[in-house]
Amino acid sequence: MALTIIGTMAFDAIETPFAKTEKTIGGSGTYCAYAATNFMHSINQVSIVGGDFPQEVLQDLNRLGVNTEGVEIVKDKKSFFWSGKYHLDMNTRETLITDLNVLADFNPTLPDSYLETDYLLLGNLVPAIQRSVINQLSKRPKLIVLDTMNFWMETAMEDLEDVLKMVDVLVVNDSEARQLSGEFALVKAARKILAMGPKFLIVKKGEHGALLFNGEEIFCAPALPLEEVFDPTGAGDAFAGGFIGYLASTGDLSFENMKTAVIMGSVTASFCCEKMGTERLKSLTPEDIQKRAAKFVRLTNFQLSC
Amino acid sequence: MALTIIGTMAFDAIETPFAKTEKTIGGSGTYCAYAATNFMHSINQVSIVGGDFPQEVLQDLNRLGVNTEGVEIVKDKKSFFWSGKYHLDMNTRETLITDLNVLADFNPTLPDSYLETDYLLLGNLVPAIQRSVINQLSKRPKLIVLDTMNFWMETAMEDLEDVLKMVDVLVVNDSEARQLSGEFALVKAARKILAMGPKFLIVKKGEHGALLFNGEEIFCAPALPLEEVFDPTGAGDAFAGGFIGYLASTGDLSFENMKTAVIMGSVTASFCCEKMGTERLKSLTPEDIQKRAAKFVRLTNFQLSC
Repeated sequence: MALTIIGTMAFDAIETPFAKTEKTIGGSGTYCAYAATNFMHSINQVSIVGGDFPQEVLQDLNRLGVNTEGVEIVKDKKSFFWSGKYHLDMNTRETLITDLNVLADFNPTLPDSYLETDYLLLGNLVPAIQRSVINQLSKRPKLIVLDTMNFWMETAMEDLEDVLKMVDVLVVNDSEARQLSGEFALVKAARKILAMGPKFLIVKKGEHGALLFNGEEIFCAPALPLEEVFDPTGAGDAFAGGFIGYLASTGDLSFENMKTAVIMGSVTASFCCEKMGTERLKSLTPEDIQKRAAKFVRLTNFQLSC
Repeated sequence: MALTIIGTMAFDAIETPFAKTEKTIGGSGTYCAYAATNFMHSINQVSIVGGDFPQEVLQDLNRLGVNTEGVEIVKDKKSFFWSGKYHLDMNTRETLITDLNVLADFNPTLPDSYLETDYLLLGNLVPAIQRSVINQLSKRPKLIVLDTMNFWMETAMEDLEDVLKMVDVLVVNDSEARQLSGEFALVKAARKILAMGPKFLIVKKGEHGALLFNGEEIFCAPALPLEEVFDPTGAGDAFAGGFIGYLASTGDLSFENMKTAVIMGSVTASFCCEKMGTERLKSLTPEDIQKRAAKFVRLTNFQLSC
């Protein structure tokens, strides 16, 4: 039941209305991996970093069951760097700096030990690289989850359409679902996107929770109302990592279990927002997850007498 | 278990990206009453209309169990008129015309038969009139629900604060909750608002559902993802009417039953958006309500194996 994750491992500089970091560990792959380790410990990481990336982070992930053999280290170059600033609503942000650095030459070759993966999470990246990872595998995984963003819809739509035909689950936010489909109503957007390839669509709505679509079925997961959204960076990646980590740990790909996986993704994402960067995510315990999952039950549970 | 509703009965002219009406029946009281009749048939309506208001609407409400003795008819004046235009997102709107007409002199005196009401819904209106209605009652109702809006926070805050101390449940939308409390995070906003008087706070979030707060308890109700939001006018009033109508019909004011009442309010509001004005709301059957309530269960239900 190995899970392979591809995504960036990077430095971030984040400014929110409440806090600021100069240079902290980030990247979609880092968040996905930390999130997934709350549910399973047989994870293959694919990424690229520069010589400036701390060895301790890789060791910390190893300790949690993440194989980093597939993380290429380019000693004489710098790691990917992203800097962003959040607006007061914490749902919208502005990118201040994007330094691709090592990412400009990223063209991963999967280690042999990765080739028979059962679960694949394609973190937000160039669609052509996502496709190349799928094509390198020696057998089709049981489940492929794809995360992407508006940027690729604008710059690499053909490749993205190609990848969409190869995956089982697409994870995007609401504005991306609207952009990808050209439909405003999310029910209509979902129908069009499901016709593009994926069997399941997850639409993340930040503080408003997430929707899971499968055929004509819809599941609506709440977000935990938080007192302080300290830093939403990585929450989407943490969602995807928690979602697929839970599915891989249970091996049950029914719609019913997908619903629970969406809750587990939401649980993981809710922790992610509580501290800066990956800080809260890497200190989570199974008890933290269980307690918060129980909170989600209380949050949505109601009775119909009739 | 009589329910008294006070609110406007009016004409609306509505423009959405999908449709336009010249002059249709509207008003917060009209929507609230139609919504509540889906759950009970012992409703006392308090409002004011001009000589131009169709007798058939009052008769239609009578047929559904709404006593309109408390609806003052000013024969030589015109009914309240509101005209608005919705933006593409259907969550924001612009008021084009507000002709107060009869509403300018509204100072209701409750008929004797209304004075022992068990449930009171104060639809969106001048806070001083809402207070005067409470003060006229010969005994304190079991439950008072208050609907209000940002306009009164800006123009009649002292009166509104007064009324807040007298009610059990406040229903507002998310931006109003933020404005009333001065807090952005809804959990913090709720804590401040509950300290102002009401024991329960409902925050409506349009297509993102609604939150119910009571002490430290939170319940999160989804909105039904709709393919076409044809006209959201009155959805908030329909929510309030369905909510209190269900509570009045069950007589159970526990937090558990309040949760179900929020779902019933959401069910009623979801129908309201499907056609222009009150059209869909007045043709609802108990079966429609039950079927859609079951849909809400499927929409939010999930299992935790642990």
